[in-house]
This record gives sequence, structure tokens and C-alpha cells, in this order.
Amino acid sequence: MARILTGIQSSGRPHLGNILGAILPAINLSKEAGNESFLFIADLHSLTTLRDGTARREYVRAIAATWLAFGYDTVKNTLWRQSRVVEHSELYWYLNCFTPVPMLDNATSYKDKADKLGKSAVSSGLFTYPVLQAADILLYDANLVPVGKDQRQHLEMTRDIASAVNNQYGTEVFVLPEARIDERIMTIPGIDGAKMSKSYNNYIDIFQPANELYKVVKKIKSDSTPLEEPKNPDTDITFQLYALIASAEQTAEMRRNYEAGGYGYGHAKKALYELLVERFATERERFAELMAEGNDELERELTAGEEKARAVASQTIQRVRAVMGFS
Amino acid sequence: MARILTGIQSSGRPHLGNILGAILPAINLSKEAGNESFLFIADLHSLTTLRDGTARREYVRAIAATWLAFGYDTVKNTLWRQSRVVEHSELYWYLNCFTPVPMLDNATSYKDKADKLGKSAVSSGLFTYPVLQAADILLYDANLVPVGKDQRQHLEMTRDIASAVNNQYGTEVFVLPEARIDERIMTIPGIDGAKMSKSYNNYIDIFQPANELYKVVKKIKSDSTPLEEPKNPDTDITFQLYALIASAEQTAEMRRNYEAGGYGYGHAKKALYELLVERFATERERFAELMAEGNDELERELTAGEEKARAVASQTIQRVRAVMGFS
Repeated sequence: MARILTGIQSSGRPHLGNILGAILPAINLSKEAGNESFLFIADLHSLTTLRDGTARREYVRAIAATWLAFGYDTVKNTLWRQSRVVEHSELYWYLNCFTPVPMLDNATSYKDKADKLGKSAVSSGLFTYPVLQAADILLYDANLVPVGKDQRQHLEMTRDIASAVNNQYGTEVFVLPEARIDERIMTIPGIDGAKMSKSYNNYIDIFQPANELYKVVKKIKSDSTPLEEPKNPDTDITFQLYALIASAEQTAEMRRNYEAGGYGYGHAKKALYELLVERFATERERFAELMAEGNDELERELTAGEEKARAVASQTIQRVRAVMGFS
Repeated sequence: MARILTGIQSSGRPHLGNILGAILPAINLSKEAGNESFLFIADLHSLTTLRDGTARREYVRAIAATWLAFGYDTVKNTLWRQSRVVEHSELYWYLNCFTPVPMLDNATSYKDKADKLGKSAVSSGLFTYPVLQAADILLYDANLVPVGKDQRQHLEMTRDIASAVNNQYGTEVFVLPEARIDERIMTIPGIDGAKMSKSYNNYIDIFQPANELYKVVKKIKSDSTPLEEPKNPDTDITFQLYALIASAEQTAEMRRNYEAGGYGYGHAKKALYELLVERFATERERFAELMAEGNDELERELTAGEEKARAVASQTIQRVRAVMGFS
């Protein structure tokens, strides 16, 4: 059985790119027989880049609401806020004592940031970020961690730190996790054609009110081919986005429309907008419901998840404390 | 009212140097009217240098037993094990996110170790040691921290980190602590005349069985002045140690003996040994009692202390969580 651990960055409300590129694939993976998903909102990590407490609270709620709206099954799986399971921080300290400074000096993510921003702009939180990640993973005896290629090095560090502890105490304190590098990770284009990303401000927020959603869809970049002329669907962003969520039939039909001519980008954008609203109708409704003031469902879901997470984490931390002499 | 915070390193059983140089002065300070002492055994910190769990447990017990044997008042004050109040680790993470890497690069204690042992022998636990210290101090709203001169820089860091948080959130999240640099800190000579220290293996363990204690006292370095000749008490280690614990009358008498001649170092050592056993009779007995197998008094004292410590720490951590958006 695979225990899959996934941490979700909590630096913003999930957009269409996150949903298609990460959330839906992860939910599908969690549904496979024999898989058990441990999914946490990495709010502790977010403090390295986001200091605003109100924004953090809001993002955390929105992230949880998104996963739940898209059908993440919290009976089979476990969803929690990292900061509410204090074992993450406790293990983080222990692991820091088994992490040589040069290992962190050599982390690409750190070097990139230090080069770009200057070392004095980098906090020791960011510097030791991979150690907190190691704690996240090792705390749950995860054996499978889906990572992008850029995170592969961090998982290697987790394995190195875990091995250092196991070797020191001559017993398998930690399970060594395996990376699952998904080579086929989809890159979802944003409205300007670049990778959809919060930092590029080119994202589509499917949870906003329909009229605002339509406004954003209308801003999708297109070329100046006149309405009556045939258009190349394969170079058009609207078509690409449409194809990502439409059925095969719908996609084929739009392709014919593009190639026939007499079909403008405005038509295509209207069709995309309508498809978004229709395709995500249930999720939009559920999201709004979960986010509504006075509804404590979200809080109850998270609190229950934290109890489940803690039950596993506290077993691991007891094992760690026992060998290190803290119990 | 001064709330005094003191962390005790847990890297060994306290010896006479620790007792005379640190423990008795701290207990006296805690007894002054208006003072409240918060005293923790820094077992988390000890992981940076000591990995053996059995030794750590033993040292922690011996330290607690020593303070209690010497009359540390746990009704007025608070004594706890750092690792048992998980708020230390939690705050440590938060503070790491407000600590620029160059601040830690410049810590003298880190630079010394990196120069001496090479950077690859230094863990990120040791590197971020001052951040855990900051968490220790800020967690208890301590306003007074007695430090040796070598720790002054770490206290400055604590103030800098605390100010960074207070400025970020525009409110006094943390109390800024003041250092109390004791210029008159006594250096207790070891049996070879160098500063008494576990690492020099020149210490006197007053809790060992009397015959072993006598053996160690007999090893105190002395010169080769013959028995019958007068001796200079001011350059003799035995006399110095004797003077540190004897009454004024006893000291004056031994000075006369030294200066008169016909009094050998063997006589002086016997007198020192007898004085040690007599002067610390109650403490030796109490220590043995507290350390005895089956006596759970020590554990009860510490557990009660941890409850008191947690009551204060959890108030602070709630304040921190609230401004940073973790509640």
C-alpha cells in the first residue's frame, strides 16, 4: 500500500492552473486502490514568503474548500493544517541537528533566492525549508512523495537526513520515502500564454462571480485574424484552455469551428466561459457554501483531519523521542 | 518585578564548578524579593552536541536533582525540561522566518565552531542555535537574562528578532529582554588549575561516593615544597578551592597553617575533602534520594514545572499565532 504525502503551498487561492495541473491529478491518484493520501496545507512554510496573517487564514480556508469542493475524500484520506500538528515543528528541530550546513548551502532553491535577492533577504526559515519538508514527510512514514523535478533535490535531502538518524541509532526510526517524479506534469497556459501562475497575474479564478469570470476570459490573448477567416486552434490559448476541460466531442467541434472560419475569438471565449461555469457548477456552489460565513463545516473537516494526522504523527515522534532520549 | 530566565545546558552532571559558579548564584538571585526565576533544562539544545539518548536522560535527571538538592524553590519558581514544552520548537520555526541568514553567519559561536571543525561538521541545529535561544527567552516574556560575556551577542540577536516581529505586526508581541552581564562571574579552578570544566576532565563531582571523592581531591595539583617549609596559599589550588567553600575563620586558619610550615598539601587536601563532605552533606543525601530508582519525586517535580511553564508559553504562542494567522 502506498501512503502518498502531498503538501500544498498556501500562498494564494487555487486557480484553474492549480486545479487542472495538481489538484485533480492528486485526487485521482488518491482514488486508486491501495493508495492512501495524506494532504496538508503547508501554512508553516508559507511564513517564509507571506507575513500577513489575515491573508494566510483566508488562503488556508480557500485551499481546503477547493480540495473538498473537488471531491477529496476525507474519510479515506487525511487533510490538515501543518501548523495545527505541532509535531512538525518538534521534528524539524531534531532533524536540524542531523543536517550539515553545507547540505542546505547547496540546495538549488536556496542558492537561487540568495543570488536573486541577496543573502540578507533570505531568512533562516527559508534556508532550513528542506528540513521542515523532511519533517513533514518523515512524520507520516510516507513512502511515496509526488514531486516536480525542481523538488527532487529536497526529497534526496529528506532521505539523507532520515538515513543519518537511522544510522546513528541503529534502528529504522524513519521510513525512507521514494519520489514519484511526474514527467507528464501539465503546464496550464495563463491568459497571456505563459504558464498560469499567481505571480504572473495571468490566472483564471474559477470561483469568482460569473460576470467577473467572463471578464477575465475575455482578456485571454488572441491574434488579430479577422472573424471570417479560418484560425489555427493549436496556437490559440482559448482553444488550449477549452480543450483541457471539454469533452472530446466538444473539442472536435470547436476545432472545426476554428478551421472553418466565420467563428471569432469572441465566440470561442464565450464558449469557454460557458463551459467553465457549466463544468464547475457543482464545485463553484460547494466552494461558496464551504466559504460562507457562519458555516463551520470547513473548520470541522480540518479539525477532524488534524486529529487523524496527530494520531500518526505522535506515534512517530514518540519513536524519535525514545531513541534520542527525550522521553 | 523581574522575570529571570535561565537555561541550563544538559551535557553532563553538574560539578563543583557549575555549583559554585552558576547554580548557587542563580538560586540566590531567585530568592531576592520581587524576582521570579524560570529555569529550564536545555535538552533540545543538547542534541547539537550529544546524540546518546541514555546519557541525555541521565544528565537531565542529575541536573534537576542538583538544583533541587541545593534548594531551588519550585513553588515560587518554575523548573522544566525544554523538550516537554513543545511551544519552544513551534516558536523556533516562526522566529527562523524573521532571522536573516547573515545574522547567524556572524554569530561568533558558530564561526568558532565552523573554523575549528569545518563547516560540514556543523549542523543547521548548531547554526540556528541562537534562534532556539530566542524562542526560549521570548516564550516566557522574560525581562532579565543573566548571561556570560560570550552569550551577549546571542541576547542581542534575541532582541533583534523580537523587534523584527514587533515591527512587522505593529504590536508588542514580545517583551524585549535585558541582558544581565555578571562581570564578577567566578571561575572555579579544576584539579589541574585550569578552569573547572567537564571537557578538561579536571572537575570535582561532589555527588560521588566519599572514597572516590577523596581520590579526586588527592589528585589536585600542588608544587613540590617539602612538608616542613612554609607554603604560599595564594598560588595553591587546594587552598583556593578550600577558600571558596570554607568560612572566613576556616580559611584564615588554613592560611596560617600554610604560612607556618610543617603543614603538607596532603593535610590540606584531607581538610578540603572533609569540608566538602561536611558542607554538602545535606545536598549529597538529597541528591542520592532524588536519583534513587523507584523514587518518582523528580519526575513529579518536573511534570508539575512543565505544567506551569506551559501555562505561560501557551499564552505567548497564542499571541504569536494570532498575529501571524495561525489561529
